[in-house]
Amino acid sequence: MKYSFKNDYSEMAHPKILKALSAVGNRQFEGYGLDDYSSNATILLKKTFKVPNADIHFISGATHANLVVISSALRPHEAVIAPESGHIFVHEAGSIEATGHKICTRPGYNGKLSVGDIESIMLEHSDEHMVKPRLVYISLSTECGTVYTKAELSIISKYCKSNSLYLYIDGARLSVAINSPACDLSYIDIAELADAFILGGTKGGALFGEVIVIVNDKLKEDFRFLLKQRGGLLAKTAAISVQFNSLLTDGLLDELAIHSINMAKKLSDGIVSLGYEFMYPVETNLIIPIFPVEIVEKMRQSYSFYDWKGLGNKTAVRLLTSWATPENMVDEFIANLRLMGGH
Amino acid sequence: MKYSFKNDYSEMAHPKILKALSAVGNRQFEGYGLDDYSSNATILLKKTFKVPNADIHFISGATHANLVVISSALRPHEAVIAPESGHIFVHEAGSIEATGHKICTRPGYNGKLSVGDIESIMLEHSDEHMVKPRLVYISLSTECGTVYTKAELSIISKYCKSNSLYLYIDGARLSVAINSPACDLSYIDIAELADAFILGGTKGGALFGEVIVIVNDKLKEDFRFLLKQRGGLLAKTAAISVQFNSLLTDGLLDELAIHSINMAKKLSDGIVSLGYEFMYPVETNLIIPIFPVEIVEKMRQSYSFYDWKGLGNKTAVRLLTSWATPENMVDEFIANLRLMGGH
Amino acid sequence: MKYSFKNDYSEMAHPKILKALSAVGNRQFEGYGLDDYSSNATILLKKTFKVPNADIHFISGATHANLVVISSALRPHEAVIAPESGHIFVHEAGSIEATGHKICTRPGYNGKLSVGDIESIMLEHSDEHMVKPRLVYISLSTECGTVYTKAELSIISKYCKSNSLYLYIDGARLSVAINSPACDLSYIDIAELADAFILGGTKGGALFGEVIVIVNDKLKEDFRFLLKQRGGLLAKTAAISVQFNSLLTDGLLDELAIHSINMAKKLSDGIVSLGYEFMYPVETNLIIPIFPVEIVEKMRQSYSFYDWKGLGNKTAVRLLTSWATPENMVDEFIANLRLMGGH
Amino acid sequence: MKYSFKNDYSEMAHPKILKALSAVGNRQFEGYGLDDYSSNATILLKKTFKVPNADIHFISGATHANLVVISSALRPHEAVIAPESGHIFVHEAGSIEATGHKICTRPGYNGKLSVGDIESIMLEHSDEHMVKPRLVYISLSTECGTVYTKAELSIISKYCKSNSLYLYIDGARLSVAINSPACDLSYIDIAELADAFILGGTKGGALFGEVIVIVNDKLKEDFRFLLKQRGGLLAKTAAISVQFNSLLTDGLLDELAIHSINMAKKLSDGIVSLGYEFMYPVETNLIIPIFPVEIVEKMRQSYSFYDWKGLGNKTAVRLLTSWATPENMVDEFIANLRLMGGH
Repeated sequence: MKYSFKNDYSEMAHPKILKALSAVGNRQFEGYGLDDYSSNATILLKKTFKVPNADIHFISGATHANLVVISSALRPHEAVIAPESGHIFVHEAGSIEATGHKICTRPGYNGKLSVGDIESIMLEHSDEHMVKPRLVYISLSTECGTVYTKAELSIISKYCKSNSLYLYIDGARLSVAINSPACDLSYIDIAELADAFILGGTKGGALFGEVIVIVNDKLKEDFRFLLKQRGGLLAKTAAISVQFNSLLTDGLLDELAIHSINMAKKLSDGIVSLGYEFMYPVETNLIIPIFPVEIVEKMRQSYSFYDWKGLGNKTAVRLLTSWATPENMVDEFIANLRLMGGH
Repeated sequence: MKYSFKNDYSEMAHPKILKALSAVGNRQFEGYGLDDYSSNATILLKKTFKVPNADIHFISGATHANLVVISSALRPHEAVIAPESGHIFVHEAGSIEATGHKICTRPGYNGKLSVGDIESIMLEHSDEHMVKPRLVYISLSTECGTVYTKAELSIISKYCKSNSLYLYIDGARLSVAINSPACDLSYIDIAELADAFILGGTKGGALFGEVIVIVNDKLKEDFRFLLKQRGGLLAKTAAISVQFNSLLTDGLLDELAIHSINMAKKLSDGIVSLGYEFMYPVETNLIIPIFPVEIVEKMRQSYSFYDWKGLGNKTAVRLLTSWATPENMVDEFIANLRLMGGH
Repeated sequence: MKYSFKNDYSEMAHPKILKALSAVGNRQFEGYGLDDYSSNATILLKKTFKVPNADIHFISGATHANLVVISSALRPHEAVIAPESGHIFVHEAGSIEATGHKICTRPGYNGKLSVGDIESIMLEHSDEHMVKPRLVYISLSTECGTVYTKAELSIISKYCKSNSLYLYIDGARLSVAINSPACDLSYIDIAELADAFILGGTKGGALFGEVIVIVNDKLKEDFRFLLKQRGGLLAKTAAISVQFNSLLTDGLLDELAIHSINMAKKLSDGIVSLGYEFMYPVETNLIIPIFPVEIVEKMRQSYSFYDWKGLGNKTAVRLLTSWATPENMVDEFIANLRLMGGH
Repeated sequence: MKYSFKNDYSEMAHPKILKALSAVGNRQFEGYGLDDYSSNATILLKKTFKVPNADIHFISGATHANLVVISSALRPHEAVIAPESGHIFVHEAGSIEATGHKICTRPGYNGKLSVGDIESIMLEHSDEHMVKPRLVYISLSTECGTVYTKAELSIISKYCKSNSLYLYIDGARLSVAINSPACDLSYIDIAELADAFILGGTKGGALFGEVIVIVNDKLKEDFRFLLKQRGGLLAKTAAISVQFNSLLTDGLLDELAIHSINMAKKLSDGIVSLGYEFMYPVETNLIIPIFPVEIVEKMRQSYSFYDWKGLGNKTAVRLLTSWATPENMVDEFIANLRLMGGH
C-alpha cells in the first residue's frame, strides 16, 4: 500500500486516547452525555476557550455537527453565507439544503471570506422574494489550508454582530489553525468572536468525535432536542468525551497539531527548495503544491493524494500531514520528488 | 454511584474490541468506509446474514441509522407504519417527521405490530388527501423487550411484499432477539424477510456503531450520498468496522447477547420467585416487572432504573442487563428485593 | 348530474363577488398584496376582529394556509397538538410532517380537543428524546360539524398561554361557526383567544382565498418571506382581497353562513322528524345522520354525499349545505328520504 | 397613481375570463379538479401541446408550481441545475432549498443556460460527497426577457436525456415566448423537448392560475398526493380550469401574448429611435433599456418600473407590457422620454 498524504484521518487514534478508553473498564456511566466524563471534558473545554457560560455538546462527525448547528439556528427562510470553497457548500452532499436552507456564496480568496463578500450578499438580499441571510459560515483552518488572522476574523465578527448575523466557525481543523505560525488567534479569541463553533477531534488524533461549543445564548435553547432529532446524540457520548479529556490533558491536542504542522512545513520547504510553487500560502497541515503533470503521475505511483486542480500541463495536488505522519516519510517524499523531477 | 439497570449502553466496550482498535496502530486506511477493515466486516456480515448481494453501511448510532434509511426509501408523500411503542415514534425527537414523513400508528400488542394493524392502516388510506403508507417499521427486540416469532414476522413480510410496503427492522438489539429462547428467527431469516434492517453494536458490546444492511435493490441506489447528506458517513468508518470484525469473530456478538439474556433471565426468575408479575413476557435483556410503589422507592435508593408506567399503588419499572452485567449484581438485586419486600 | 351534498365548495362564487372582480376593469394594482384592495380588506378585517395590531395575509387555500402558519411558528423539534379528527392530521396528505413537524393527537370528543387532552400530551413529553409540543391546532367549526363554546375555547386559550403553547384556529369554516346558534363566540372572541387563525373564503362564497390573521407578535416576524417560500404569496393577491372586500361589506359573509346553517337545520329537522339519529350534535352546515344501509344506497341514486363511517347495517353519511344550497333541494331530499324510508 | 410598467400582472383579468367564471352560475361541480371544466381544459391543453398521454394539473401560482414539481421529481440528495438568473434561485425565497434540494448554478448568458454550462456542473459532481444533479430548470421566456431557439432547446433536451437529467421549463411566461418573433419553438416542441413544464395564466390574462404539464411517465406517479401535500390542490380547481378553457378558446391566450409583445416592440422601437441601448436582446414583453440616471429619475415621476442594475451614471430599468397595456400609454412613455431626454 502506498503511503497516503490524502488526508489527516488515515490513522486510527493516538495511543493515549485508546488507553484512556480502555482505562474505563466496565465502570458504568450515564447515557447521552450526562456522565462524569462528559462533565469533566466540559470543564476542560470551558477553561480552554474561557467560556464558563457556553453550552458544550459532543457529536461523532463534523458534517453532522455543521448541519445540526446550522439547522438549529435558522428559521425556514433564513440562509447561510459561505465562501464557494466552504465544506458545507461543496462536500457535504447538500446537507444544509436538506434541512431547508440556502447557502449564498462568494468566491472568496485563498479559501477565506471577507467582510466585503458578506456585505455584498447582504445588500443583494433586500426583500421577501429572496432568502434572508442569517449565519456566516467559515472554516478555520480553511479547505485551502489557510487561516484567518485575528484582524480578519475580528472585523467579520464585528460586521456580523452589527447585522444580526450569527458567526459560525467550522473548526474541524481548529487545533492546527490555532497552532499555525500564520495565525495570531487563540482558542479564547475564537470563543469571543464566534457565536458557535466546533473543535474537531477526528482530524486531531481522536478515534472519532467533535465538540460543539455554543457561545451565544440565543442558540442554546433546546439544543439537545435538535441534536437528538438529527441522530447526533450518541448513547455512549462518554466514548467521545473520554477522548477529549485525553486531548485536553498535558496539551496533547496542541502537541499533535504542532507535529502535523511541522511535517507540512518540512514537506513544503522541501518542495520549495526544488523550485515548485503553491496554490495558496502554506499555513497549516494542508498544502497544495503545483507540479508538472508527469511528475504528478510519477509521484502517484508511490504516494496517495488528491488532485486539486488541473492547470494545463501542471496539476495542483493536495497533500495533508497528520498527527501520525512520520518524519522519514516526509524526507522520502522529498527525495523521491527530487529524483523524479530530475533535480 | 448506584448500580444501574437503566440500559445496556452503560459500559464502554468489550476489551476485545478496544484491543482490536489498538492493534491497528498507525496503519493507514482509506476514509469513508473504503478501507480494508470495512471490506472485511462486510464479508463477515454478508456471511452472517447470507446476503451476498446486500449493501452494507456503517453508522455511529441507531436513531441516525433509522432516519437515514427511512428518509432514503420514501418519496415526500409516503409514510411509515409503526406500533405506538416504536422508538421512532416516541423517543427519537421527531426525527422521521423532521425528514418530512408521517408515522401512522396502531397500539400494537406487547410492543409488536400485527398484520391486522398494518392492514387497518392501509385500508384507511384511500386517496391523495392522505399520506401513502410505504414502509413498515418494527423493532426487534422491541421496546417492551419482546420478540417476533418466525411465523409472526413471515406473515408481516408476506403482507408487505403483496402491498408495496418495505419492511424495515430496527435491530439496535437484534443480537439479543436472535439469541432469545422465545425467538425462532435466525440472522438469515431476518435478511430474507426484511427489505432493510440494522444490526446494533452500541448495545451489543461495541464502543459505538451500527450496521445498515440493505437487501432490496430498490433501496440501494445512491445510499452513500444519503448517508453523507445526513451526516452519517464517518471519515473513520474503519473505527466502526474494526469493532464489527471483532464482534463477528469467534461468536463474540452472540456470546455477549447470551450473557445479557441470561442475566435478565436470572433477574426475572428471582423476581417471579418473590411473587411479582411483569408487564410483558420476559424474552430478552429488557424486563418490566411491576412492584408496589414503596418497594420501587426503596430499590431506587440502591439501583438506577427507569419507571415504565404508574399503575395506581404499583409501578412498572424497566430493568436492562447488558453484555457486562456481573452475575453478583443480579444476585444482590434479588437479595435486596427480598429484604425490602419483606419476603 | 345528481344534486350534491358532498361539500360546501361545489359552487363557484356568489354573484356579488364576481361582480366586484369585474368592476376592477383594467385598473392597475401593485403585486403581492401591496395594493389598495388588500389595504382596504385589511382595514375591514381588523375591524371585524377588533385587532388593530394584527398582521393580515391572503392565500389561495386552507391546507396551504395551515402549513405556512404552522411551519413558520415552530423550530424543528417543536410539535403540534391536534385532535385525531383534525384536518391537518388526516386529510392534508402529511403537509405538516412534510415541513418537518410531528402532530401529537388525542381522540377528542365530537371533533373537539379538551384541556385534559392537551395536558395529557404535555405531561407525556418530558425530555429531549421526544418532540416538544408548541402549538395547539383546532378547527372551528370542526370536521364533525360542531363548534366550541366560549367557555371551552377560553379554558384552552388560558392553558395555552400558561404553557408556552400557541393556539391556532383553522377557520376554513369560521363564519358558519360564529353564526351557529350553538356557538356563543364572536369574531372578536376568536382574535382575543387565538394567537393566529384563518378565516375561510373558499367555503364561504368566494371563488377562492383565505385570510390569515396573526395576532401574537412573536408569529409576525418575516411572515411574508415564509408565505413566499412556500408558494403562498400570489402575484395577484388583489384577486383575493377584492373578494373579502365584498364578503365584509353589508354583512355578506354572515348572510351566506346563516343561509347554509339554515339549510342544514331544515335538513336535519326533516331527518329527525323521520326518526333518524346523528353521529354528532347538529350545529353548523355539516351534519352526519345515520341511515340504514339500504336507505343510503337508495338516496345515493339521487344525491352525491360522502360516507362517514360504516356502523354494521347502518351508515353514517356526511351532508353539507352551502351558501348556494336552494331550499327546494332540501325539501326534495327530505321528501325522497320519506319515500325511500317507507315512512 | 402613476402608470406602471413594473410587471405583467398589474391588471385583474381579461373580461372574457371573468365572464366565463360568471357564466357558471350556481352549477355544481366536483372538488379538487375532478370536475367537467377541468376535464375540458385538460382536453384543450393536450391538443395544444399534442400530448395525449401527459398528466395535467392546475395550481394557483408559479412559485408554487415550481416547488411542487421539482420536489416531487427528486430524491433527497438530488439537485437542480439552473442559471444564476433563474427565478427559483433568486426570487422564490429559497423555496426549492426549503424542500431539501440544492440548486447548482452557472452565470449563463442573456438569462439562458447552455449545454456547456450544464456539462461543466455535471463534470464537477463526481462522488457521494457532493449532490447529484438530476433536473435542469430553465425559464421560457427568461427573467431577462429572452427566449431559447429550437436549436438551443433541442441540444439541451438531448443532453438531458443522455445524462439522466429531467428538463423542466418554468413557463410562467410561455405564451409570450412561443409568440415571440425571436422564438421558433411551438407549444408542441416544448412538450416534445421537456419532461415537465408549466403554462402560466397569471401573467397571460387570467385572474390567477397555472397549468402543470407532466410529459415524462416517471414524474407522473402520485403527483396529486404531492400537490395536496404542498397545499397546491385547490378545492375549487374548477375556478382555474374555467379560465384556461377561455384562454384556449378562439386563440385568446396567443392573442393576448401577441398584444403584449407588440406593445413591448413599440416601446423598444421608440427607445431605440432615441438612441438608447438595451441590456439584452428585445424578444418578448420584458425589456431592459439603459438610461442615464437623471432620465431614470425623471421618468420615475410619471411611471412605475423596477431598476434592474446600476451601471455608474446609467441605470438599466425593467419595463414590462401586458395583455392589457394600452397603446397610448406606450406612445406617451416615448413622448415623455423624448422630452425628458432632451432629444
